[in-house]
Amino acid sequence: MRYLTAGESHNKGLVAILEGIPAGVSIDENYINFELSLRQGGYGRGDRMKIEKDRVEIISGVRMGYSIGSPISLFIPNNDWQNYKDKYHQQGLEYYTPRPGHGDLPGVLKYNFTECRNVLERASARETAVRVAVGSICQQFLSIFNIKVYSYVLSIGPVKIPPKADDYTKIYQSQFYTLDKDRDEELIELVDRVKRDGDSLGGVVETVIEGLPPGLGNYIQHDLKLDGLLAGEIMAVPSVKGVEFGLGFSGTSLLGSQFHDPIVLKDGVKRLKNNAGGIEGGMSNGEKIVIRSAIKPIPTLLKGMDTINLKNKEKSSTDYQRSDVTVVPAASVVIKNVVAFVIAQQFHLKFGGDHLNDTLKSYNNYLKRIEEIFYG
Amino acid sequence: MRYLTAGESHNKGLVAILEGIPAGVSIDENYINFELSLRQGGYGRGDRMKIEKDRVEIISGVRMGYSIGSPISLFIPNNDWQNYKDKYHQQGLEYYTPRPGHGDLPGVLKYNFTECRNVLERASARETAVRVAVGSICQQFLSIFNIKVYSYVLSIGPVKIPPKADDYTKIYQSQFYTLDKDRDEELIELVDRVKRDGDSLGGVVETVIEGLPPGLGNYIQHDLKLDGLLAGEIMAVPSVKGVEFGLGFSGTSLLGSQFHDPIVLKDGVKRLKNNAGGIEGGMSNGEKIVIRSAIKPIPTLLKGMDTINLKNKEKSSTDYQRSDVTVVPAASVVIKNVVAFVIAQQFHLKFGGDHLNDTLKSYNNYLKRIEEIFYG
Amino acid sequence: MRYLTAGESHNKGLVAILEGIPAGVSIDENYINFELSLRQGGYGRGDRMKIEKDRVEIISGVRMGYSIGSPISLFIPNNDWQNYKDKYHQQGLEYYTPRPGHGDLPGVLKYNFTECRNVLERASARETAVRVAVGSICQQFLSIFNIKVYSYVLSIGPVKIPPKADDYTKIYQSQFYTLDKDRDEELIELVDRVKRDGDSLGGVVETVIEGLPPGLGNYIQHDLKLDGLLAGEIMAVPSVKGVEFGLGFSGTSLLGSQFHDPIVLKDGVKRLKNNAGGIEGGMSNGEKIVIRSAIKPIPTLLKGMDTINLKNKEKSSTDYQRSDVTVVPAASVVIKNVVAFVIAQQFHLKFGGDHLNDTLKSYNNYLKRIEEIFYG
Amino acid sequence: MRYLTAGESHNKGLVAILEGIPAGVSIDENYINFELSLRQGGYGRGDRMKIEKDRVEIISGVRMGYSIGSPISLFIPNNDWQNYKDKYHQQGLEYYTPRPGHGDLPGVLKYNFTECRNVLERASARETAVRVAVGSICQQFLSIFNIKVYSYVLSIGPVKIPPKADDYTKIYQSQFYTLDKDRDEELIELVDRVKRDGDSLGGVVETVIEGLPPGLGNYIQHDLKLDGLLAGEIMAVPSVKGVEFGLGFSGTSLLGSQFHDPIVLKDGVKRLKNNAGGIEGGMSNGEKIVIRSAIKPIPTLLKGMDTINLKNKEKSSTDYQRSDVTVVPAASVVIKNVVAFVIAQQFHLKFGGDHLNDTLKSYNNYLKRIEEIFYG
Repeated sequence: MRYLTAGESHNKGLVAILEGIPAGVSIDENYINFELSLRQGGYGRGDRMKIEKDRVEIISGVRMGYSIGSPISLFIPNNDWQNYKDKYHQQGLEYYTPRPGHGDLPGVLKYNFTECRNVLERASARETAVRVAVGSICQQFLSIFNIKVYSYVLSIGPVKIPPKADDYTKIYQSQFYTLDKDRDEELIELVDRVKRDGDSLGGVVETVIEGLPPGLGNYIQHDLKLDGLLAGEIMAVPSVKGVEFGLGFSGTSLLGSQFHDPIVLKDGVKRLKNNAGGIEGGMSNGEKIVIRSAIKPIPTLLKGMDTINLKNKEKSSTDYQRSDVTVVPAASVVIKNVVAFVIAQQFHLKFGGDHLNDTLKSYNNYLKRIEEIFYG
Repeated sequence: MRYLTAGESHNKGLVAILEGIPAGVSIDENYINFELSLRQGGYGRGDRMKIEKDRVEIISGVRMGYSIGSPISLFIPNNDWQNYKDKYHQQGLEYYTPRPGHGDLPGVLKYNFTECRNVLERASARETAVRVAVGSICQQFLSIFNIKVYSYVLSIGPVKIPPKADDYTKIYQSQFYTLDKDRDEELIELVDRVKRDGDSLGGVVETVIEGLPPGLGNYIQHDLKLDGLLAGEIMAVPSVKGVEFGLGFSGTSLLGSQFHDPIVLKDGVKRLKNNAGGIEGGMSNGEKIVIRSAIKPIPTLLKGMDTINLKNKEKSSTDYQRSDVTVVPAASVVIKNVVAFVIAQQFHLKFGGDHLNDTLKSYNNYLKRIEEIFYG
Repeated sequence: MRYLTAGESHNKGLVAILEGIPAGVSIDENYINFELSLRQGGYGRGDRMKIEKDRVEIISGVRMGYSIGSPISLFIPNNDWQNYKDKYHQQGLEYYTPRPGHGDLPGVLKYNFTECRNVLERASARETAVRVAVGSICQQFLSIFNIKVYSYVLSIGPVKIPPKADDYTKIYQSQFYTLDKDRDEELIELVDRVKRDGDSLGGVVETVIEGLPPGLGNYIQHDLKLDGLLAGEIMAVPSVKGVEFGLGFSGTSLLGSQFHDPIVLKDGVKRLKNNAGGIEGGMSNGEKIVIRSAIKPIPTLLKGMDTINLKNKEKSSTDYQRSDVTVVPAASVVIKNVVAFVIAQQFHLKFGGDHLNDTLKSYNNYLKRIEEIFYG
Repeated sequence: MRYLTAGESHNKGLVAILEGIPAGVSIDENYINFELSLRQGGYGRGDRMKIEKDRVEIISGVRMGYSIGSPISLFIPNNDWQNYKDKYHQQGLEYYTPRPGHGDLPGVLKYNFTECRNVLERASARETAVRVAVGSICQQFLSIFNIKVYSYVLSIGPVKIPPKADDYTKIYQSQFYTLDKDRDEELIELVDRVKRDGDSLGGVVETVIEGLPPGLGNYIQHDLKLDGLLAGEIMAVPSVKGVEFGLGFSGTSLLGSQFHDPIVLKDGVKRLKNNAGGIEGGMSNGEKIVIRSAIKPIPTLLKGMDTINLKNKEKSSTDYQRSDVTVVPAASVVIKNVVAFVIAQQFHLKFGGDHLNDTLKSYNNYLKRIEEIFYG
């Protein structure tokens, strides 16, 4: 399973090709659009989100509602294109003041541009919309095996929102995609205040994978470890500056005897705690996989930041670009979906199958094989 | 540039094939062996480290001291092999009590084994020796371009050792590979105490890449981002449970205006701080790349942990396996070297060249091209 | 450099994402469309070719006429979609009689389909249109370095058309894309006769790459050899059943002293003949690369072929599907373009560069380096 | 499944890492050595073959005779190393006269060498020994599923040896690995005569894969087609200049109705002939896969060839290097084994499984699923 994306922020739209979903998987376009709307939602998004009501167009690979094994290609039009189609291929969109925190400056140097337009068009987090679409197809594949991926917000700026209960059905009852909607007002107040100051906020996202059997990923080679693959794909999401599994950094100050999760018998093999975050030896161990991702405050600030002007090499300030106060809720949706891709890919690598029925049989054989030891 | 490794912990030895180092790079076997000795050193290692004085054998790809463009293959004999050669391919080495924190249990399930021997042989951190050898060749390639990778320990268990000064030449003056050797005694005391308790310690490692030009890595595709590639490769090192760049998790509570690093003119384009950790938009931005990795306490405990016995499916305790109290110093060496691989790979991807001179010319052309804007 | 395609034959259209073209390459949409029209042209095509006047839409990656380094995504609408949009996602297009020579039967078995529709939609040579578009962008990249790829027809069925002269500008003066348009009438007569018989014709295509420097490809690993990469990509073109370089099969009966091409001095290093077809040791050797591809007669026959009916498992005959008598001219265009992709990929792998200027400098450095020995 | 090789011709030996063989496969070292001896055998080999009695050393990945899922690393010592160990890393082995037909000249230019030694060390067909070892492990994996790969010689120079009967057990009764040992004397006479003349011979090899189910490979993407993958890997074998499936080039002059293989019912679905060579739509179709490869006469001639001297850029002649008259029998063994790798890789991609039992169940499920339609 592999995918590539293409498309720029103010050009026609975003494209993805996702290859390797077996035939026979029911693909619900509404679900993709629902996930796209989640990415656009969340409190604290800027005006652009109102312009775009992203809707996916499935160009190929799905027929009469089912995957057919052929590459699934997706198109998400940029609704803004109507405003840009006469300008996009013209001079006039030059952007000379590279924004700290964005790829503007290294991108201009790398690609020998004289200004940032071409960089910001592609490096923009806009592109994550189509990664969400890809991942939401992977989610539909995984859900057949009762594997679910959830992401929710653990903090916005300095405000921590510990999960009230592990009821993941409640995530989207919160405007911040937290597991405690009762604290939304506090966060609204925070965001509004920061918005007035022309500033921005980061936060922490937690992602949980439920229902994964033990043995996905592999310990045999550096580039096959499940945690490595997940970390690589998550860190490739714009604004992510850190990834940790289980206790992560906080576990480094514990003793081994405190950290590790004893193996006990209790209707099969269980763990009484999950400090490892569901991964041992680069493999899923049958517990929930728990990942936390650090999202930096977005770099496009209403109040501007010190920078240089590439045209005259003088001190300058970043121009205001229409933007958001915080993308932590949106990032939680993106991370959920890139995680879904990695899990679907590794799942299919292990179980094979060109049609869903083949994969199902192979999967069920595996569950039966490990049943005696593992499921008790 | 790519590499694969092979080899088990008590079998003959470890093998690696590293492909893509251009011809003409001076390869010093002593440097590889020095890095191998660093991995084996550090206070708190177990007895096994005394058995093995790892020394690399370069089987191919280097001639008269220089790379010849052909795949470099490496062999590191397991010195323990003398003790195991009559036992390794016999019954008698069965290990029935999967150790929490290791890949033992998921590995046994995945591969349909009845006991853990085959898993622990390959999933063992022993394999990282040959990753160190691979990376230390990459270091030699990078050093031609004045690109250096350093790793040092920031904490062992609950004890934090902030760098006293950024003088990376002093790392190995500390027995714990910290940047403050004056605190070694405190750490020795800690490790000795934990050892008496039969327990283990984790910690945090910081890695710095110096001398990298802006523009390595790429924003154009999910699997080309420099931070994603680094995080993926680091998280694939055994015991690593978290990776962060720059401020990482701690930066999530800052405001955007505090977090981001203004771009200023000062003998070229500079940043006054480096909260981003040297990566913006999935590319190096010309500042130091700063990465922190969370190392969990090692799971093999002298005092044992609760587990099951796979033979009779009864409650049991892990057997004592000869092991270490902490591998944080060793992990710092491994991380340095896998980072060196990723950087060398991305460097060569950008600049190309079959012989070092080609790469050098291409690199110097690039430096000249960005000089006016960047180096001022 | 890599690409993926998607899209089915009677669905909305074809999609491709091509990644790795450096920034700064002038991309002429007209040239892509010209190549697309060549693929659709050539004498002996069926009616479908008249329905579709393929025109590419560049969705991303090109701005103001130049590549910007970002993935180039392409869309070629299926003009037939207007006739199918109400039927495509409905029952009624079932195709129960697998056609010998097509992927129908193995595809149905592989993917657990009950009839051939989903297979023929994707396995159709229709998909090669977008490979042509991808390759014609690669051609534009290569032509900056004076590297040109040509393909022409050497035979149609039993009729051989040896090149009259190596004037590749004349290829498309022949309706059969041969190098001897004077023999078009003879071929027209052949094709018309075979058409009346409801049968089809194959042929042989020759491809020439001019202007390639020595040293592309690599001898160091099985999957890096230039001939292997070219053969793999060409054999993946529908209807190709054989690929050979230089003398190919006919050279197997010669003596070594007859076969091999002596190295002589004559304004640099030259060969007096080119039996090797420009590749030695898996690398370009500086001579023209010469490849011949065997194109089987197309399997969709007006007069039908014996097959089975998948519904009732009874003897049957293939239905008539609108089709062509011969696709040899079209195949020559497809092969030219997939070859252009491989060459562009290997070229960029060797010389690197994010902007065309970087690649050019690196390339010129190489030419200068080998000048003394090679160019004399 | 993937593999890399390393090692030079007169250095210590050859190394390979083969990854992806599931656990539980019985690996017989004798079988590997038998295949290695076949590669070294065949009439017409030079003296070097007598020096080296290649024997593989399995360094890892196999325990108590079975694969354990971990990477299998192999070492084949160069027996010649004893004669070279004092010379290999010294001046004195310079080779200034690039041999036409070898990679010498393009290799020297590519890698900026002043003479050919480093190139010929790695580009030598010596490296194919370890590819044979890799493939012979794959053969053992495939044979569990009753999939067999055979290669035999169809011609040596101008002498064609059509198979007398398709009894593949008789291949190695012929000193030339043909299917008609009665004609060995005629070939011996030919080879002896050519040897006296200081010349060399090529030939054609046919490879047959038996027992493959339909549906391996894929039509959905250019780089997944079974014929493309096979052709790419075969063309990467030194001396191969052409590859064709089924009728190949000779089929291009037939009519479609003559070429294609009608689908008939006869104890399941059968073909009455196999002009397609067992591949349709880039997939196995359940018939034998039949491949022919063109092997050029080896370029190292006792009588020398015109070339230049790189030191003084004057006309010269190639030095005599100990060599063979023909490698066609040896090439047949190499091709068999690289084919076995591709088939094993594609087989495992389709059926998955970490332990052989998983793969077997998945495979049997597939056979059962297609039974009604295919096996009758």
